[in-house]
Amino acid sequence: MRGASAHDVLARAAALGEISEEPGRLTRRCATPALRRAAELVAEWMEDAGLTVRRDAVGNVIGRTGGDGPPFVLGSHLDTVPNAGRYDGPLGILAALAIVERLTVGGVQPPLPLEVAAFADEEGTRFGTAYLGSAAYAGAFEREWLDLVDDDGITLAEAIVAAGDDPEAAVGSRTPELVGYLEVHIEQGPVLEREAVPVGVVSAIAGQTRVRVVLAGEAGHAGTVPMAARHDALAAAAEVVLAVERVGRSTDGLVSTVGAMSLAPNVGNVVPGEVRMLLDVRHADDDVRARAAEAIRGEVERIASARGVDASWTLRYDTAAVELAPDLRRRLEAAIEAAGHPVRSLVSGAGHDAVALSRVCGASMLFVRCAGGISHDPRESVDESDVAAALDVVERFVRGL
Amino acid sequence: MRGASAHDVLARAAALGEISEEPGRLTRRCATPALRRAAELVAEWMEDAGLTVRRDAVGNVIGRTGGDGPPFVLGSHLDTVPNAGRYDGPLGILAALAIVERLTVGGVQPPLPLEVAAFADEEGTRFGTAYLGSAAYAGAFEREWLDLVDDDGITLAEAIVAAGDDPEAAVGSRTPELVGYLEVHIEQGPVLEREAVPVGVVSAIAGQTRVRVVLAGEAGHAGTVPMAARHDALAAAAEVVLAVERVGRSTDGLVSTVGAMSLAPNVGNVVPGEVRMLLDVRHADDDVRARAAEAIRGEVERIASARGVDASWTLRYDTAAVELAPDLRRRLEAAIEAAGHPVRSLVSGAGHDAVALSRVCGASMLFVRCAGGISHDPRESVDESDVAAALDVVERFVRGL
Repeated sequence: MRGASAHDVLARAAALGEISEEPGRLTRRCATPALRRAAELVAEWMEDAGLTVRRDAVGNVIGRTGGDGPPFVLGSHLDTVPNAGRYDGPLGILAALAIVERLTVGGVQPPLPLEVAAFADEEGTRFGTAYLGSAAYAGAFEREWLDLVDDDGITLAEAIVAAGDDPEAAVGSRTPELVGYLEVHIEQGPVLEREAVPVGVVSAIAGQTRVRVVLAGEAGHAGTVPMAARHDALAAAAEVVLAVERVGRSTDGLVSTVGAMSLAPNVGNVVPGEVRMLLDVRHADDDVRARAAEAIRGEVERIASARGVDASWTLRYDTAAVELAPDLRRRLEAAIEAAGHPVRSLVSGAGHDAVALSRVCGASMLFVRCAGGISHDPRESVDESDVAAALDVVERFVRGL
Repeated sequence: MRGASAHDVLARAAALGEISEEPGRLTRRCATPALRRAAELVAEWMEDAGLTVRRDAVGNVIGRTGGDGPPFVLGSHLDTVPNAGRYDGPLGILAALAIVERLTVGGVQPPLPLEVAAFADEEGTRFGTAYLGSAAYAGAFEREWLDLVDDDGITLAEAIVAAGDDPEAAVGSRTPELVGYLEVHIEQGPVLEREAVPVGVVSAIAGQTRVRVVLAGEAGHAGTVPMAARHDALAAAAEVVLAVERVGRSTDGLVSTVGAMSLAPNVGNVVPGEVRMLLDVRHADDDVRARAAEAIRGEVERIASARGVDASWTLRYDTAAVELAPDLRRRLEAAIEAAGHPVRSLVSGAGHDAVALSRVCGASMLFVRCAGGISHDPRESVDESDVAAALDVVERFVRGL
């Protein structure tokens, strides 16, 4: 199967979508036999396209062409979340392969050294840390990550050994010299669909603040404790949820979410005594994000104090925003214009391998419209014509480098 | 062990508190060996007090004294919720026993025929239907209840057979002729404690409306779906929780609670797609309760519609309020005054065996102050002096009948 057209890309995404850890649904986590099989299929396609293929210690598969010297890198990740769709990750690898095939038709040399990267771990589903694959490729793999443990008690080091590789080789990798990086990815949001635009240039990847908020009130009998005597943890939590929404709405580009909540004792006829929540705040500007988190923290304290409820605030995760390379963004915008599409720039609220690559070279991303903004779900879907538009843009972009 | 003093009552409550299905915590559900052992201990105490004891098909234990004719009944239930306290139920049985012992000191006949009832099921924890014991005693046991199933798939009929009894005998019981009923029970709320009063007369048992509310919005990536494009089921639920609280606060004596809530998918970085809630509304006046439930329903619809979220409203349970017998209440008030305590009347937000008894005779209840209003919890606690006050009041009440 050749893979240079949008149709080919979708067919290959379908083929990869069959390679899973589980029957009946797509789950392909880092350092599993399923990921290994998928990587072998991608390596075959790379070889068919005339690339020289290598595999590194964490399971990244890299295809190279265009001679010696620092390469420009195109790629994305091959791992998935549990019960995933076909496109989050693989689309970027297959688009990269398609571009290489287009640029080397008839044995022509590409305009510059190119590498196509299929990263082994971006989702962090198995070991709880994202970008393991792209960090290793970028020479930033930290030794302590080898001790990360999955749900079955297997360390990353053990998983690497089980896959027949050497954990030490992951740590020892040198920082590569790279010309730049471009990643094609589904948007995972509704903006391009809403604006009827096939592709968009990512200006930045939002920073993230994740916090556990626990509200401890007083459980009581729902029939016998008068309203005025209650310290209802859920009523306090409800005020917090609405404050989080209010703060999110107050600033353009800000998103703030309470995604998870659990009650104790969580019984219909008992006033809730404790509520635990997970808060997620994101923005492209770290100061805006920090101010939003502080505003929410202030609201939590105000609400808890007014209701005689105890509140705790535990920061679990804090990553800075990443601005993508301005020169590459300008080149992408020019390619989009040349291809006859409206130029739309947008911030990525989700993290991507481009974060890890941005530490060693200029990194850029092209988003592709996806149906309903749905991702991390089997209903994930892209239109062939949008993939064609993306391939057209990326081909123009690389030819112009 | 004689049981006529408040000290004796607390010692007997402690002894019963050791009889459990589980080691380390008190759980004594209907038709279990633990309930049987507790019933046997109560039967021994009844016999020691000179009562004639019988046991019926659902496991109620009834002690009788004072000759032939319709009896006045004193009692409460012997079953508990899981991880219970010692007093919810047993206090009423042991207070009844203490009164009989006081009235029959030296072989004296009581002023009228008396029965002391230890009901086998009030909490409904095992088979999901409350008052199985007192309903059987009151001749209102319905045949279909024999098919109720516990969590292990055992029917009530099977449980009765396993306890050595005949299920048909429960159904066949006649409606007894009773002079009246008095139940002593911990308040399970903070009103008496707040007002520094040892006992209170229950004027009515509140009716209950229980509803399942499901809000179905749209799940989405917490990083990529802009605030304005969300249909966040949790944000809608938060508004509902606050509306439920607002309605509850709007009318004296009304309580309305969201006690249980579950989210889907309930993941920190996903906008909640669905929220399921249990709503509980109670008031002594059925019209007030119905209007409150309607007001909440209207709020649910308004909130859901404003947010583009689907809402469903499923009534799961609806019981009318029960007014307790005015003549018995007046006699209780007189006894409280005679004992030198302030007279405080209050509504019971929780259901009690008195509901089942009110269908066949005038029923009354005396609440005893409990620490912090806490019940259904090992921390359940009463003061000996408050129990002494209750015994004094009930003795005066029965002597005055």
